[in-house]
Amino acid sequence: MLPLPQRVVEYIRAHSLLRAGEGVAVAVSGGADSVALLRILLELRNELGIVISVAHFHHGIRGADADADEAFVAGLASAHDLKLHLDRGEARVRAGKSNISLETAARQLRQGFFAQILQEHKANCVATAHTLDDQAETVLMKALRGAGSRGLSGIFPEHRCVAGRIVRPLLEVRREQLREYLRAQKQEWREDASNLDLSFARNRVRTRALPMLRDEVNPSVEHALAHVAEIARAEEQYWNDQITRLLPLVIVPGEPARGGGRKQTRSEGIAIDIQKLYQQPLAVQRRLLRAAAEKLGCGMEFEQVQAVLHLIAQRAERGAQNKIVELGAGWRVRLLFRELRFEVAEQKESSTGYALPLHIPGEVRVAALGTTIRARISEDNGKAKNASYNPHSVRLPEIAELVVRNWRAGDRFRPARHNSEKRVKELLYPLHLSEEEKRLWPVVAAGDRIVWVRSIDSPELRTETGERLSIEESAE
Amino acid sequence: MLPLPQRVVEYIRAHSLLRAGEGVAVAVSGGADSVALLRILLELRNELGIVISVAHFHHGIRGADADADEAFVAGLASAHDLKLHLDRGEARVRAGKSNISLETAARQLRQGFFAQILQEHKANCVATAHTLDDQAETVLMKALRGAGSRGLSGIFPEHRCVAGRIVRPLLEVRREQLREYLRAQKQEWREDASNLDLSFARNRVRTRALPMLRDEVNPSVEHALAHVAEIARAEEQYWNDQITRLLPLVIVPGEPARGGGRKQTRSEGIAIDIQKLYQQPLAVQRRLLRAAAEKLGCGMEFEQVQAVLHLIAQRAERGAQNKIVELGAGWRVRLLFRELRFEVAEQKESSTGYALPLHIPGEVRVAALGTTIRARISEDNGKAKNASYNPHSVRLPEIAELVVRNWRAGDRFRPARHNSEKRVKELLYPLHLSEEEKRLWPVVAAGDRIVWVRSIDSPELRTETGERLSIEESAE
Repeated sequence: MLPLPQRVVEYIRAHSLLRAGEGVAVAVSGGADSVALLRILLELRNELGIVISVAHFHHGIRGADADADEAFVAGLASAHDLKLHLDRGEARVRAGKSNISLETAARQLRQGFFAQILQEHKANCVATAHTLDDQAETVLMKALRGAGSRGLSGIFPEHRCVAGRIVRPLLEVRREQLREYLRAQKQEWREDASNLDLSFARNRVRTRALPMLRDEVNPSVEHALAHVAEIARAEEQYWNDQITRLLPLVIVPGEPARGGGRKQTRSEGIAIDIQKLYQQPLAVQRRLLRAAAEKLGCGMEFEQVQAVLHLIAQRAERGAQNKIVELGAGWRVRLLFRELRFEVAEQKESSTGYALPLHIPGEVRVAALGTTIRARISEDNGKAKNASYNPHSVRLPEIAELVVRNWRAGDRFRPARHNSEKRVKELLYPLHLSEEEKRLWPVVAAGDRIVWVRSIDSPELRTETGERLSIEESAE
Repeated sequence: MLPLPQRVVEYIRAHSLLRAGEGVAVAVSGGADSVALLRILLELRNELGIVISVAHFHHGIRGADADADEAFVAGLASAHDLKLHLDRGEARVRAGKSNISLETAARQLRQGFFAQILQEHKANCVATAHTLDDQAETVLMKALRGAGSRGLSGIFPEHRCVAGRIVRPLLEVRREQLREYLRAQKQEWREDASNLDLSFARNRVRTRALPMLRDEVNPSVEHALAHVAEIARAEEQYWNDQITRLLPLVIVPGEPARGGGRKQTRSEGIAIDIQKLYQQPLAVQRRLLRAAAEKLGCGMEFEQVQAVLHLIAQRAERGAQNKIVELGAGWRVRLLFRELRFEVAEQKESSTGYALPLHIPGEVRVAALGTTIRARISEDNGKAKNASYNPHSVRLPEIAELVVRNWRAGDRFRPARHNSEKRVKELLYPLHLSEEEKRLWPVVAAGDRIVWVRSIDSPELRTETGERLSIEESAE
């Protein structure tokens, strides 16, 4: 087996990641992976003819630990006489403002920092230390959420952005091999410096799912998942070329005019010729629909693609009522006689959501559902007070106000007897709801926290004073 | 949500699985899934206009239980006045003769039975009770072994064979929904009647991997994996059409003749024009290579496809030595000046394997490796005799003769601290061996059982009399 740096140089050459004369900013968090990337590229810099600098971003979280990471990376750059790019941000503030997770906020800030390095011509590309293990985690998460070849492509060796490239030279190296390399080099690293990147889901895939699958199904499961990514990436490249060529051929310009002919369209949106779409194989139809939606800046999930194809398939049937599929992000698809129109959703369509205060105890009638939702102090209250402590029960803060509302994308909920929160979207999936039912499905929220979802077993709820709270829905 | 039979009829129509007037033999093991399939199709037979019969195969294993399954299914057919196709086979005998697993033998026998029903015109198609859960298990197993879109397509709704079709009308129904349906109908079933189908790997995916992934990552993981299959199936259909069209365009007839020109080829095999292959996108190149291999009746794994592409990429390099990739099944690919030739592997190429007896205690020199492998009674024997019972230790039967040999496809081994056997192929993967190293990698076998693999931690070995046995390799 080749020494590690030699394997990395082969990977860099096979994917034309770096060219002689380029400035490469190595993103170093201080964790093992990125420190190893720096040391390996230092070994290779003469062979590759590159000029190395170090980039480190301080996310404004993890206090003294993050300061120590920064100092460690600065020391590393200085020891090797490398130029250092440093910047700071406030991930927690950004997360709060944009209502996104801390990891997402941290990633966005870091990516902005990389983009700035490239825009200011401080480097031709930024090198990040994603490993084969990161790739396997990504592919597994995508598969477990139902991806096609785009999702299964996982992390790309190279990502081109406006001002330059992000490259990942370690994408075929195992995390453990990097640690062995560092130990052999007697190079220290900062444990946990990079764990900020871990989303809740990735963390569980890394620490629970993959070790179990390795033991139970395939000892080289990470390599297998990396193969899935490699195969899917080539196919995705192929599809991108095909769809870029085909999409203009099925798009109809303008809008049908009353009395025949077409008028130039005032509105935003895209129309697709149904007959031309239908001449394509199913796989191409699906990709054309997704590409049309992406042109408008809204994605399409698999169920939405299927719903649109179902609209077309049943268009000949008499009495087919539904001619619209909602896409979210303010867009929808409407079936016309000869075309599918991607158009801005009318306001009234999206205003049927609801959010109603629910007192404890109390009840509220939800007109959109035709039902009443009640919060009441449970009758077995006396018994429950003496019951042993239940670690899974949810205690509401005194100030909590309950709100009955329709669920929203991004809502998460921990059902009874589950150890972790799930996306409400995924909890609803097995219920096989119609689009309309799904859109209006009720939840009860206490502040940011969902404490009840219709038809899903709720954890035990207790008020601040320890009383047991029941939430019930009835049709009267 | 629609009642279950109505959902099944929609699925049957959407995929044109059954046509009015057809005879449908429902494969009924007696387990819940297949009994539910029968009852649902009985509800639908007027609506679909089909004639139903029942097919049951007795595999000659599970003794009285299997007899009772057969009697149960016969009773079910009689109660509904349905024609019954019964047959028996001896799965254990077949497994022994062909050196295949019992599940594989059972499946082959059953498929032969279905083919016979179709050939003898007893039915136009056979309906089997594969569910969405079976689909999810299949897709997950494929992903965890590194599949492309063919593997990820999982179970197809329809499989066409020479004499008719196998159809799977329940592929979008959950196993649990079938049980609910049966309970509502007060219809009994035979528990475990179908578990014969479970391979070791599928059983672990079903009972361990999926429940864990459902809990840790995605509560609707089965639906997500079924989406992966649905997307992949449409793409696979597209690719089949493309590759069927493209393959003849890159194949070169005949062989290059000495002195220029081409002569008609005597030998079997296929040649591919390198330049024409290289004009195609990478995804198409990969699929063309696999299609060429399949034309010859030998598969190509991802690593072999990559190795052939690597041969081509380095053909311009001076001193590139290796011009051959072994495919197995007696075939190999050889790089010529302008073409890739798929040809019969020469005998001498495949005869470098070895199998040498190893006495206890004793040693044997393996010329192919240049090393000596020793079996010795361990020095800590006295202590080990008093040591507490180790449930993971392997005790060799008295008659066991050890054999040192190169590993073979299909070999399985349980490393130390693992609860189950792994494929040796997959254990070797993380070692990043060259093709040559991998081919000759040594194992020690006691009868059918692999007890030692170079570089892999072995479980504790004991002789029949309880002495501790060590196996060691040295280069002197």
